[in-house]
Amino acid sequence: MLKISKRGEQMPASPIRKLVPYAEAAKKKGIHVYHLNIGQPDIETPPAILNAVRKTEIKVLEYSHSAGNESYRLKLVQYYKKVGIDITPEQIIITTGGSEAILFGFFCCLNPGDEVIIPEPFYANYNGFACAAGVRVVPITSLIETGFALPPIADFEKVITSKTKAIIICSPNNPTGYLYSRNEMEALKDICIKYNLYLFSDEAYREFCYDGEYVSAMHLKGLDDNVVLMDTISKRYSACGARLGALVTKNKAVYDTAMKFAQARLSPPGLAQIMGEAAVDLPDSYFDAPKAEYLARRDLLVNRLNAMEGVFCPNPGGAFYAIARLPIDDSDKFCQWLLEYFSYNEQTVMLAPATGFYGTEGLGKNEVRLAYVLNLDAINAAMDCLENALEKYPGKVKKEKTEIAEIK
Amino acid sequence: MLKISKRGEQMPASPIRKLVPYAEAAKKKGIHVYHLNIGQPDIETPPAILNAVRKTEIKVLEYSHSAGNESYRLKLVQYYKKVGIDITPEQIIITTGGSEAILFGFFCCLNPGDEVIIPEPFYANYNGFACAAGVRVVPITSLIETGFALPPIADFEKVITSKTKAIIICSPNNPTGYLYSRNEMEALKDICIKYNLYLFSDEAYREFCYDGEYVSAMHLKGLDDNVVLMDTISKRYSACGARLGALVTKNKAVYDTAMKFAQARLSPPGLAQIMGEAAVDLPDSYFDAPKAEYLARRDLLVNRLNAMEGVFCPNPGGAFYAIARLPIDDSDKFCQWLLEYFSYNEQTVMLAPATGFYGTEGLGKNEVRLAYVLNLDAINAAMDCLENALEKYPGKVKKEKTEIAEIK
Repeated sequence: MLKISKRGEQMPASPIRKLVPYAEAAKKKGIHVYHLNIGQPDIETPPAILNAVRKTEIKVLEYSHSAGNESYRLKLVQYYKKVGIDITPEQIIITTGGSEAILFGFFCCLNPGDEVIIPEPFYANYNGFACAAGVRVVPITSLIETGFALPPIADFEKVITSKTKAIIICSPNNPTGYLYSRNEMEALKDICIKYNLYLFSDEAYREFCYDGEYVSAMHLKGLDDNVVLMDTISKRYSACGARLGALVTKNKAVYDTAMKFAQARLSPPGLAQIMGEAAVDLPDSYFDAPKAEYLARRDLLVNRLNAMEGVFCPNPGGAFYAIARLPIDDSDKFCQWLLEYFSYNEQTVMLAPATGFYGTEGLGKNEVRLAYVLNLDAINAAMDCLENALEKYPGKVKKEKTEIAEIK
Repeated sequence: MLKISKRGEQMPASPIRKLVPYAEAAKKKGIHVYHLNIGQPDIETPPAILNAVRKTEIKVLEYSHSAGNESYRLKLVQYYKKVGIDITPEQIIITTGGSEAILFGFFCCLNPGDEVIIPEPFYANYNGFACAAGVRVVPITSLIETGFALPPIADFEKVITSKTKAIIICSPNNPTGYLYSRNEMEALKDICIKYNLYLFSDEAYREFCYDGEYVSAMHLKGLDDNVVLMDTISKRYSACGARLGALVTKNKAVYDTAMKFAQARLSPPGLAQIMGEAAVDLPDSYFDAPKAEYLARRDLLVNRLNAMEGVFCPNPGGAFYAIARLPIDDSDKFCQWLLEYFSYNEQTVMLAPATGFYGTEGLGKNEVRLAYVLNLDAINAAMDCLENALEKYPGKVKKEKTEIAEIK
């Protein structure tokens, strides 16, 4: 009998996509589904960057340089300068989405059996890349009561072993929306230096910070050798389908090693690089409108959630996600029930059970992630659905009114 | 000290790209370099498929389905039907180039430490993907004297162990241009069934067969569970930079497993999928012109090579590569010398040393790969350079006139 590999068997299925068949069935019944379950924004991709592709005069769509077109890397140097990151084109490898940057980081810095610490809840696909690379994810828990702030450094130190090689952070965070403060970033720096760890910094949501200052891992002084920045244009320019990201590092050994992996797959997507290059020429004011829109959505979403009986949602400082605690028995069951058995005025809402974002078994059972990627009217309607659903859901759990911790 | 991973250290650098600095230096001296070293065709990408992207009216470039847009997979079903491959959209995963299809195949079917048999010389990047997946490549040698025909089945049986899980073939072949006959494909089938092996079939050059019949691994009866087809539009439509490929398999367990890896990286490139979809609508006659062009180039190249003193080049049945044996001491030295010390009428030629395509140390030292991706005039001029270079090269080896084996 032909066998599937062990890593193939262990590879986790996407926790976000497993509810899709239920959503499809609901739609077939004529129910409108508000998709707050995935990070696919409704914001228009800037017409100027799509037009750059429409106007291209290329005759042969050739392989680009394995590190990406030099012209695009030069443009990115300008972009990074604007966000306070000083690098050269020879410190950038253009990747196929942020996904490939993460995979390259794992391949270059970690051996099979090595461990990577990730504050949970975390972006579920880190599990998939870790599985592909044979790396073990060690979660440490951040708490909804603190708005998902960085766990105490003592929690990191408790789990650090000789196999620990890296920490992954994502700020502003998917799935929590939490934005690490300068103090938290400095604390991460100290622990990386003390224990000789790589800091993988996923900064996909850099542009969307609403409260507080954005601090990149690349802003930290004296951490140049440790930092591997994983970046993407997916969220920045609402261009998720372009599949264009970047691995950025000042560590030459990591860069040279990542280049070998980059050469093996020849080059990143060519048409997307035309878009990416044009994006750097957008006026600085481009971000004003989407940022204001996301901020208004956040405020509406968080206010609506916290006004519901037994619901607690800390106010996220960035990105376009929030995690809410609901008075429910089981978030997987609840999210499926919303699609399978519930409707309110022929409408329902699709949410992501938070269980998929925790590495620790059993956590997230009364939490859901909401992506505020729909307009204000849709968010209001979705919150009407959720409020009504929480009244009707058979697995409702009666709770004391949650103490809302002082966030920051 | 921060360390690079072992797999990162072991990851091979691209053997084709290591001569690039010498080519750049030659160009700076004003020498024209004929690039016969890489498989980047000069053939125009069909304007109709680039126009499909130019005309796109999308407003938001969203993630596609992780398996690729259903509309594209439906189109591909039509395409495959035309080449005698009967499949459904649920047996196709659209990938980021053929590269990702190869990586997914390794991840899904092989454990770290498992072995994959590949007839050598072979596409050098298989080494890179094997390294990423922790898989051991076991080469068996095909001989220039037979035109690089399939090695005897006994050679496979000699190296099969309990760790052998797959065979990789590429027909028509990169780097040899050899096209496996039906008998050879049937022999591969028998050995895969007898020893319970996957057959990874890289069919990037399917459209370019000049002599003999094209036989896909998917044409073989009774091998459905074993075959994983790795495909790409890179060469088919001269769209290497699109980064659009496919993994095709009727083995549901492999498919479902590959889908988990596909979901982790979210989706394949979106703009390229628009191109890919339009490509299926090109008239069947589209391939006539590039195929005739490649055939004329092959005939010219092979004739010119075999007319040179001490040179032997078997006539390749497909793709756009040929491997030639030259009367030289060391192909790496020779290819570097061509760029560093040689010119003829201010021109030189860049070739790929065949050493990079062999897994067995020491082989390929008197062989080079030539990609006939330039027009007839350029090929003639490049052959003038080569002929002249072979007269002047200090490491020339005097040899008996090679017996040209009867090919097929």
